[in-house]
Amino acid sequence: MSGKLLNAEEVAKHNSEQSCHVIVHGKVYDVTEFLPDHPGGKGIILKYAGKDATEAYDPIHPPGTLEENLAPEKYLGEVDQSTLKKEEKEVTEEDKQIAKNKENLPMLSQCLNLYDFEVVARQVLKGTAWAYYSSGADDEVTMRENNTAFGRIWFRPRILRDVSNIDFSTSLLGQKSKMPIYITATALGKLGHPDGEKNLTIAAGKEGLIQMIPTLASCSFDEICDARVHEQQVQFFQLYVNSNRAVTEKIIRRAEERGVKGLFVTVDAPQLGRREKDMRIKFEDTGSRVQNDSKDDVDRSQGAARAISSFIDPSLSWDDLHWLRSVTRMPIVLKGVQTWEDAVRAAEMGLSGVVLSNHGGRQLDFSRSGIEILGEVVRELKARKLFSPMFQLFVDGGVRRASDALKAVAMGATAVGIGRPFLYAYSAYGPEGVQHAIQLLKAEMEMNMRLIGAPTLKDLVPEMVDTRALNQHVVFPETSANTVYERMSTAVGSPDEPVGKPVVKL
Amino acid sequence: MSGKLLNAEEVAKHNSEQSCHVIVHGKVYDVTEFLPDHPGGKGIILKYAGKDATEAYDPIHPPGTLEENLAPEKYLGEVDQSTLKKEEKEVTEEDKQIAKNKENLPMLSQCLNLYDFEVVARQVLKGTAWAYYSSGADDEVTMRENNTAFGRIWFRPRILRDVSNIDFSTSLLGQKSKMPIYITATALGKLGHPDGEKNLTIAAGKEGLIQMIPTLASCSFDEICDARVHEQQVQFFQLYVNSNRAVTEKIIRRAEERGVKGLFVTVDAPQLGRREKDMRIKFEDTGSRVQNDSKDDVDRSQGAARAISSFIDPSLSWDDLHWLRSVTRMPIVLKGVQTWEDAVRAAEMGLSGVVLSNHGGRQLDFSRSGIEILGEVVRELKARKLFSPMFQLFVDGGVRRASDALKAVAMGATAVGIGRPFLYAYSAYGPEGVQHAIQLLKAEMEMNMRLIGAPTLKDLVPEMVDTRALNQHVVFPETSANTVYERMSTAVGSPDEPVGKPVVKL
Amino acid sequence: MSGKLLNAEEVAKHNSEQSCHVIVHGKVYDVTEFLPDHPGGKGIILKYAGKDATEAYDPIHPPGTLEENLAPEKYLGEVDQSTLKKEEKEVTEEDKQIAKNKENLPMLSQCLNLYDFEVVARQVLKGTAWAYYSSGADDEVTMRENNTAFGRIWFRPRILRDVSNIDFSTSLLGQKSKMPIYITATALGKLGHPDGEKNLTIAAGKEGLIQMIPTLASCSFDEICDARVHEQQVQFFQLYVNSNRAVTEKIIRRAEERGVKGLFVTVDAPQLGRREKDMRIKFEDTGSRVQNDSKDDVDRSQGAARAISSFIDPSLSWDDLHWLRSVTRMPIVLKGVQTWEDAVRAAEMGLSGVVLSNHGGRQLDFSRSGIEILGEVVRELKARKLFSPMFQLFVDGGVRRASDALKAVAMGATAVGIGRPFLYAYSAYGPEGVQHAIQLLKAEMEMNMRLIGAPTLKDLVPEMVDTRALNQHVVFPETSANTVYERMSTAVGSPDEPVGKPVVKL
Amino acid sequence: MSGKLLNAEEVAKHNSEQSCHVIVHGKVYDVTEFLPDHPGGKGIILKYAGKDATEAYDPIHPPGTLEENLAPEKYLGEVDQSTLKKEEKEVTEEDKQIAKNKENLPMLSQCLNLYDFEVVARQVLKGTAWAYYSSGADDEVTMRENNTAFGRIWFRPRILRDVSNIDFSTSLLGQKSKMPIYITATALGKLGHPDGEKNLTIAAGKEGLIQMIPTLASCSFDEICDARVHEQQVQFFQLYVNSNRAVTEKIIRRAEERGVKGLFVTVDAPQLGRREKDMRIKFEDTGSRVQNDSKDDVDRSQGAARAISSFIDPSLSWDDLHWLRSVTRMPIVLKGVQTWEDAVRAAEMGLSGVVLSNHGGRQLDFSRSGIEILGEVVRELKARKLFSPMFQLFVDGGVRRASDALKAVAMGATAVGIGRPFLYAYSAYGPEGVQHAIQLLKAEMEMNMRLIGAPTLKDLVPEMVDTRALNQHVVFPETSANTVYERMSTAVGSPDEPVGKPVVKL
Repeated sequence: MSGKLLNAEEVAKHNSEQSCHVIVHGKVYDVTEFLPDHPGGKGIILKYAGKDATEAYDPIHPPGTLEENLAPEKYLGEVDQSTLKKEEKEVTEEDKQIAKNKENLPMLSQCLNLYDFEVVARQVLKGTAWAYYSSGADDEVTMRENNTAFGRIWFRPRILRDVSNIDFSTSLLGQKSKMPIYITATALGKLGHPDGEKNLTIAAGKEGLIQMIPTLASCSFDEICDARVHEQQVQFFQLYVNSNRAVTEKIIRRAEERGVKGLFVTVDAPQLGRREKDMRIKFEDTGSRVQNDSKDDVDRSQGAARAISSFIDPSLSWDDLHWLRSVTRMPIVLKGVQTWEDAVRAAEMGLSGVVLSNHGGRQLDFSRSGIEILGEVVRELKARKLFSPMFQLFVDGGVRRASDALKAVAMGATAVGIGRPFLYAYSAYGPEGVQHAIQLLKAEMEMNMRLIGAPTLKDLVPEMVDTRALNQHVVFPETSANTVYERMSTAVGSPDEPVGKPVVKL
Repeated sequence: MSGKLLNAEEVAKHNSEQSCHVIVHGKVYDVTEFLPDHPGGKGIILKYAGKDATEAYDPIHPPGTLEENLAPEKYLGEVDQSTLKKEEKEVTEEDKQIAKNKENLPMLSQCLNLYDFEVVARQVLKGTAWAYYSSGADDEVTMRENNTAFGRIWFRPRILRDVSNIDFSTSLLGQKSKMPIYITATALGKLGHPDGEKNLTIAAGKEGLIQMIPTLASCSFDEICDARVHEQQVQFFQLYVNSNRAVTEKIIRRAEERGVKGLFVTVDAPQLGRREKDMRIKFEDTGSRVQNDSKDDVDRSQGAARAISSFIDPSLSWDDLHWLRSVTRMPIVLKGVQTWEDAVRAAEMGLSGVVLSNHGGRQLDFSRSGIEILGEVVRELKARKLFSPMFQLFVDGGVRRASDALKAVAMGATAVGIGRPFLYAYSAYGPEGVQHAIQLLKAEMEMNMRLIGAPTLKDLVPEMVDTRALNQHVVFPETSANTVYERMSTAVGSPDEPVGKPVVKL
Repeated sequence: MSGKLLNAEEVAKHNSEQSCHVIVHGKVYDVTEFLPDHPGGKGIILKYAGKDATEAYDPIHPPGTLEENLAPEKYLGEVDQSTLKKEEKEVTEEDKQIAKNKENLPMLSQCLNLYDFEVVARQVLKGTAWAYYSSGADDEVTMRENNTAFGRIWFRPRILRDVSNIDFSTSLLGQKSKMPIYITATALGKLGHPDGEKNLTIAAGKEGLIQMIPTLASCSFDEICDARVHEQQVQFFQLYVNSNRAVTEKIIRRAEERGVKGLFVTVDAPQLGRREKDMRIKFEDTGSRVQNDSKDDVDRSQGAARAISSFIDPSLSWDDLHWLRSVTRMPIVLKGVQTWEDAVRAAEMGLSGVVLSNHGGRQLDFSRSGIEILGEVVRELKARKLFSPMFQLFVDGGVRRASDALKAVAMGATAVGIGRPFLYAYSAYGPEGVQHAIQLLKAEMEMNMRLIGAPTLKDLVPEMVDTRALNQHVVFPETSANTVYERMSTAVGSPDEPVGKPVVKL
Repeated sequence: MSGKLLNAEEVAKHNSEQSCHVIVHGKVYDVTEFLPDHPGGKGIILKYAGKDATEAYDPIHPPGTLEENLAPEKYLGEVDQSTLKKEEKEVTEEDKQIAKNKENLPMLSQCLNLYDFEVVARQVLKGTAWAYYSSGADDEVTMRENNTAFGRIWFRPRILRDVSNIDFSTSLLGQKSKMPIYITATALGKLGHPDGEKNLTIAAGKEGLIQMIPTLASCSFDEICDARVHEQQVQFFQLYVNSNRAVTEKIIRRAEERGVKGLFVTVDAPQLGRREKDMRIKFEDTGSRVQNDSKDDVDRSQGAARAISSFIDPSLSWDDLHWLRSVTRMPIVLKGVQTWEDAVRAAEMGLSGVVLSNHGGRQLDFSRSGIEILGEVVRELKARKLFSPMFQLFVDGGVRRASDALKAVAMGATAVGIGRPFLYAYSAYGPEGVQHAIQLLKAEMEMNMRLIGAPTLKDLVPEMVDTRALNQHVVFPETSANTVYERMSTAVGSPDEPVGKPVVKL
């Protein structure tokens, strides 16, 4: 780890697959051998071969990533700053528009619901960040269904009950929460804001919610813990189990040391999802439109698959849970359960709960929404006398209104997780945005519980929701197939320009 | 209550939260202490601090409001008119457009159905008034569902019956009505027309319908009673029960004195709803877009909640109904029942009826329509032998066609209430508009009963409607979520501009 | 009945409600006393008071109408042609556009299905004619449902059957028909073409279909009979029963004399429907936009109702059918049956059949489609052993494809009626248009029967259609309510201009 | 078969129905007598009467077609090339646009799913080719339903299973396939690319899929066999049974000689379908708009029906299958089965399987999708203990995602066929396009199986799919009827321009 000073012009010569050096935070690394293992593909690194990659590197890698993944000898030394040509940073049209949009940002108080943060974020996020955050698997049918499913549940409100005082506080895995809502884990938080996940930590602490820390955070785990606003602030941790169990053990130990109160093991992502909106924006980003690159494409995707298998173990199975319980005393919850059969099995094993979830619609398209699965899970747990406060049910995906949370609670859930909307909130407004979002949810929740006639969460009984339509999936016509089909024409020509279809025009 | 004459320049100095005077109808009041209790928030008063607030005050406060809510010493005297600077009233673009639209108002006879009044009113109402009248809770799903639900009921018309003479007169709580339709209570009637609720009184009297007088009227209760067109004209009264029962008793006594024939106790609004369309127009109104006002926003909403609790008692419960029966001989009807359980309880208590209603979709989103609830209420009342003319069922929400009323009657209702459409009718055309609307309903009703083969309302039996689809809620894609989602893109670009989504553009 | 010659200037003085003369085909009539009885309202006559009304009169009155409805002394004599000022007929923009569209009329062979005739007719019909033909009752929900309902029936085609020869000939009330399709009765045929209903007679004769002659034809009954292309051509007659039974008997006797083979008694129109599209175009037509005319409107509609009752008897009941059977030997069919209860009653009475129909969606909105009713009628007739070839079931409404007819036949109908599409066909192309439409249906029918594996209509068994979804009504969002509702807005403004909503704009 | 040299000017004189000569590849043929038998109608031939028809002839006729269909004496000799005037080929606007689009063709790697090939192909195909490939029967309801039906099936994924290794190889009729997907037969492959079906052969060979060779290929059968990329490459053959059984026997024998491994007998096309989109483009092509041609139209269609019966026998029945089995040892599969009754019969006869298919929605509109039929077929086969690997079930129609194939396999199918998407792939990119499409499907399949928790196809059990909604057909509003209906208007005019409706405008 020498303090060797390297000339930038020398570094610039290592700009190929054969020899690839990059500068990050003034330090020079030889990443030639690492290229095929890069989870994002080698192409994106080669773009910065021989150059300063700091700006591109920062938002998507937590501090220490390079050090942890490269052998010590790959660190070659510091770059001599005087030799580094200051590249005139190109200001793109998109940059200009975003700057302008930021100047015209609506007042925070104009955001009246969680959808608003989404439309505001759309204005201030780079296209790449927006695509990463907002995209879902394949035709995004499941992503939409997550939200739509709540719309198939209606209330049966009761009248003439004393609703002067409303109390929606609750307890998750024995930890207090001001609401039956928690902040669920989402990846790459710095794409939206330089402080990344810490925005969520601050808002959660101030508003009394529990944050689930993601494995794939942009901030380091310790940074996120350090951001707690008070000592009693509770955090959970979301875990991807590594093929190398020792790595996982080390991570769990660190979480316990930092006082994490619950372990959410992701079980719905043995392979990371493929989101086409996200992929399309990358093509736009590169700008070139050269034919005959199909082979490269194939190679790259194989490389990604290989690389991923190093930190998510696709062979993880029920047997591994015994080992997991042996290495921690934290309550263990399976995140990503999608059938009653697996929920029952988790309950029978004595786990602490399950998150009924499809990963925000980002993994398997046409998997069902968590809220729909909740219906069958509660039914089957009750039939086996396994429905109890000792085995908690969580739901995430599509929650946008406090009423969505209340529907889940009435059906038997302990709490629901919210992810994207809070990302959008801090992308536009920082931690205050997240706080405001939470306050909106609190105001909605107070109002709704009063109107439903349920002064506490215990009063929210199954009879208060009409779930008869819950299993009736409807695929709305925004999906790919409907983009492709043409309207019928008539004897006097096309009734209107074909919808969603590029036509032959000069 | 002196006749003291005050100099307007002196008044103008009391223009802050610390000391706030306002002029209304030439009288000067000190409202400093009242600021935090104002139901509409203190901000709106401060806008007029030290100034003449008459024009903004009038449409939303019945005469006498200030006097009833302020201690006598807060009235400081009359303003010296000679010192009052005539402010040049700004004529906005909106004002100009409305004036132009009024000149081009369609002839009344061009309004062929109740929807027409809505589109015409949209042209002549100020944006703020339109937003207040037309808005619903949250995503307005329930507001739309109210109307849509009627569309899931179809007729089974019978043929070859003598339908020469059609009679659709009926009796509500023992009072005659020319139709199974009444004018239900709605708030702030002067937003649409300077004569406010009196427009409804006049039309109701001339056309033989019963009007339900609202607690939150713009006109005073007595003004509305005074507007009756003949001595036999029947009115009902809609009641918000005040935390101070003495206030409520006084109101009830006055209603009895003025000959009101029925008391409709609102039970679905322990807290006044929050309508986002209405909130948004207010931001546009203020015009400023300053950051860091989020705290103010929070305070304001808390203030509103506190203030409201003074005139609507959120602790109102079934037990209070005994008291209510002890203070009046008027028949009592619960307005806002949303489950068969509560309807059965009301029947068992010996009340005179219930209005199955969700408050026009303005309170709890995803509550079901009154017409859907009617189905289960009739079934359960019959099962308990409680279905009888002594316990009448009313439905409001979404009624736009006489056929909607006929569907409700066939299912077991006595009558249906109509609110917004009559507001729209007089906003554009005054009392003649309301009369025309009622005449249209009468013409539709005569036609429909003839075509259904039911010469009187008694002939409208349950077998004449096909209600199998009634419970099948469909959320149409105008809701917030669908505004936010983007269409899928393709390899040759976006098929069309994203629908309902602001995009990054220069 | 003098040959008295009248000066046009003299006639022109009788131009008011007090004294109203009109000239039709050179003859002068005093219609002052007839004004209040005119089915179309007095307003439309007064427009031509003192003038030559021939051009407006002709398309909507069959020859002889005036003579039959006026006392002989109201005929005042012939107008002296030399005194008649030739009015320069104004050529409107619409006239010009229609002329241009006629020049660019698609070739008849470009019309590939029945929908094509509708879009072509839209181009060449006057707005008033289009509105009359294409409109339906109220929100046109039933009109759309008629067609949509067929879309809920799917085929279960069988394979490997010898389909070399396809035969779709059948027999209606004992009369041969080349297809299980007949031309049903529709009113005011000259609005689309000067030869009116005769176009249908010619095409029906040439193509071997049966035409049902309407009571409200533009051509006289005899003209339509005279237009038969060969001696064996079969016609049915649609009957409105007059309050004056002698008038009806006379009509029936004339029909028998002219060889009509079946009597279809309309039972779904005790009052003529009210169609708003049709009403709107009339306002555009008058051009004036004067306020305070609401009273006139009310009077007019009452007048219409009274007038109508003279030729359609709203007291017609089951008992009258005994009389009807006593005055004719023609088979009697009830047209407009909408429940199984009434169909069963008709079968029990020994009538020859029923047409399951809602009058093309022009009478009662939210009545169900004939094809849906067919399902329950067949079930209940079979349950009572009344399902037999001696009691034939017909369906009309929404038939646009031969496959629609095949679905009905598979379910148990003998034939289906088609109305509007043939009007559209001759409006654009005369009798050849109707022939082409029928030929298209024949080609579709041959193709479809071959593909279904049913070489004859007898082979079309109930198992060949999947009708499970038939009762699932869906109201598509073209209806009035959805025209009125606005999309939700967002923190960054309206996602797009409100759909279907005029907004305040300068 | 003389080498006689003919003068082009002489040939040009035979340009009428009375004497019609055409030049194809330099050879002159007398086709006068063949005109009425031409499957595409005589009109299209007469367009080239007396001229060189090579360019129009080539893409839609496999080599040898003329020789096989004409008597030897109809070959008149070679044209003298020196006498042939080189016609300046007109470069149309469409040609220019397609050339431009081809220059801007997206990179192959930008095609992320099978829908992409469709939108890209739309850019580079001639309108006529696009219309032929993309069209469906009548209102294209079934064509859309084919895809939509898959959207009514949702997954029930299982967690914590070892999904390190995914294997989706399988066996079709005893032949290995890398995926449970095969390339199904489609007609006229050269419309999209000069190498026609050979593109599919090459890609199938390289990617390990099985291709089904169509009877109506643009390439000759032998050309397609010759294009195999290795000796083990497997091909199936799709057969239309000729009225002349000897012709069919000869074809079968040739298929066996060339090593074809399975015979798919088309049973859903006793008559070739009629697709209106395809017919409309032909009218645009001719350019003339002359009236009075209706008779010609009728003749032509009759001619076509007659002509077709020569190579597809509409009398084919179950009995003929005994003969078929007697002339080949290839496994026989019925292609186009649409009910469980016929599938059971095929199983009882001992055939090797059925393809549940509606011919890509190109034959009978409102026939159900193969995937829906699969549900009932498996149920009924199981009830009769006929569900076994010896009787394989295939499904085609609407498959666009690997998940569609997995849904079919989970329900009991062996494999699914894909047609149009591969045509689109090679139309834009040649065989590499098809390969890329297959690679995308493989990547999707690996991902999906991992996420479903099914490492092999055997692990895909029925419990992994939720098919409760499968029978709920929804007709989306792109169909003809909805193109024709107008939105309701209002008192202030039309809310927006009528949708899907040409209006009278100047």
